[in-house]
Amino acid sequence: MKIGILGYGNLGRGVEYAVEKNDDMELVGVFTRRDPQTVSVRSGAKAFNADDLPGMKEDIDVLIICGGSATDLPEMTPKYAEMFNVVDSFDTHARIPEHFANVDAAAKKAGKIGLISCGWDPGMFSLNRLYSMSVLPDGKDYTFWGKGVSQGHSDAIRRIEGVKDARQYTVPVPAALDSVRAGENPELTTREKHTRECFVVAEEGADQAAIEKAIVTMPNYFSDYDTTVHFISEEELKRDHSGLPHGGSVIYTGATGENNGNKHVIEYSLKLDSNPEFTGSVLAAYARAVYRLNEKGESGCKTVFDIAPALLSPLSDEEIRAHYL
Amino acid sequence: MKIGILGYGNLGRGVEYAVEKNDDMELVGVFTRRDPQTVSVRSGAKAFNADDLPGMKEDIDVLIICGGSATDLPEMTPKYAEMFNVVDSFDTHARIPEHFANVDAAAKKAGKIGLISCGWDPGMFSLNRLYSMSVLPDGKDYTFWGKGVSQGHSDAIRRIEGVKDARQYTVPVPAALDSVRAGENPELTTREKHTRECFVVAEEGADQAAIEKAIVTMPNYFSDYDTTVHFISEEELKRDHSGLPHGGSVIYTGATGENNGNKHVIEYSLKLDSNPEFTGSVLAAYARAVYRLNEKGESGCKTVFDIAPALLSPLSDEEIRAHYL
Repeated sequence: MKIGILGYGNLGRGVEYAVEKNDDMELVGVFTRRDPQTVSVRSGAKAFNADDLPGMKEDIDVLIICGGSATDLPEMTPKYAEMFNVVDSFDTHARIPEHFANVDAAAKKAGKIGLISCGWDPGMFSLNRLYSMSVLPDGKDYTFWGKGVSQGHSDAIRRIEGVKDARQYTVPVPAALDSVRAGENPELTTREKHTRECFVVAEEGADQAAIEKAIVTMPNYFSDYDTTVHFISEEELKRDHSGLPHGGSVIYTGATGENNGNKHVIEYSLKLDSNPEFTGSVLAAYARAVYRLNEKGESGCKTVFDIAPALLSPLSDEEIRAHYL
Repeated sequence: MKIGILGYGNLGRGVEYAVEKNDDMELVGVFTRRDPQTVSVRSGAKAFNADDLPGMKEDIDVLIICGGSATDLPEMTPKYAEMFNVVDSFDTHARIPEHFANVDAAAKKAGKIGLISCGWDPGMFSLNRLYSMSVLPDGKDYTFWGKGVSQGHSDAIRRIEGVKDARQYTVPVPAALDSVRAGENPELTTREKHTRECFVVAEEGADQAAIEKAIVTMPNYFSDYDTTVHFISEEELKRDHSGLPHGGSVIYTGATGENNGNKHVIEYSLKLDSNPEFTGSVLAAYARAVYRLNEKGESGCKTVFDIAPALLSPLSDEEIRAHYL
């Protein structure tokens, strides 16, 4: 399977590592909107300009699009679904129906497949919500994120005046986790589910009190949470907070039997040293499924819900049944 | 969807509860090899003799076969796959290829679907092993069972001379679980992974020392484990051990990135108050998928690996994307 990567940030690098782990995949190249001469591709694969893509329709089986959900993907995924099988990690929940429709139209026209909203949330977490609710319709799902770095929240802090750099951790509240795991089916507010911990490098002479206030009162990002702010040096940030760990849990509690007397708890949890490398690994596995499904003649927009698990594995159906069933 | 249940033991009763939770399903009846007059169906659904099935091809969309893997299912599933879409929970691992081939031939001939080896292990656990290994090919999977009642092991104890009744719990070893969750990738022997705890009611005057020896030395079932045996009264067994709880975890650890420097731990765990009711719930959800897939014109033998998750949910694709992605 010939894979192209569009966008060479953290996620693109994660996909590059993943492609190397899969013997049935070959990295054709990395595509960037920058001058490819300035891009050094770790694996030694070739760097191209994104403008070269329309001329390479025969050279790429699946293009994995590693752009941001805010502005990149709504434009790029439909555009390239007219030329390639594509996979993206679109995660702006409210805009999924619109994105789905755009990608579906483009992909159907081209006889290609566009798989959107892939990764771990949306992605593996979504699958677990769906499996659980399908098996136990009388139940309730909870999603907890972290402990892990939220890049969106870190970016939001960096945009505050006087902030040089920042790293934000989302942390699940242990009491909330315990209550859910115990099957107590609590009603939890945003504040009761997660706290936010911020490590901030201030510019020299900046007003730290003003920065802290700007963070904890920021609507959507922080005002609904208990947020703590630590000011640290640039060296400390580099030394202690350079990774991009993340994770979380989907916990589903349901009941069956006489008077709903039997309780069941299903939990799917991830502890990831590198969010972009794990996400890139999920995208690569789904690229395999997309390629196979397209070879079978299918087209249009898909999500993880539409993909039979066997399509993700490099093994044959016989091998899967023998070793994983 | 019109559902039939073949076999009315613990699992059949679990399916009956599950069908009641799903508004799009209707229980046509319970089919038994006993005299149906002697079978009282909890929900009030009709009891039939299994011999009535061949005359009811038009009345049942999916037949859920709730028999034992040792002798019932190898015969029943292929037989009824010639008449109905069927779902079973066949779990004799070594015989899956043979069972698959038999069911595949029967189902293809009839233009029906036979989904085998459904439940939680095989079933939901299998899915998690496959998803994890597909996403992180450089990794290792561990499956722990319990704490929970193993009906096979309880039955094995009951067959010992002098035993009136028994209940066996499979218990994962905490140190092994901790090591796996910490990403240490241990090599674990059978004995290091699980212990077995037995509660036995002896016949009056039976030789308890001989019973204990017969248990702990029993090949395949107990001799490879650290096994403890407690003799209790019939009343204590009834009071403290009447449920059929079970559960366990599939834990997958994998590595990505530079020199495999980033570790990832994926864990899927179940805590079930009632093993047969949860298993029955999984069978019911897959019955929905089987019906839909057959309506689309597919036939043959399938496993959970072949079923796109969306097919399991009563909701439309649009609703699923809006609420679970």
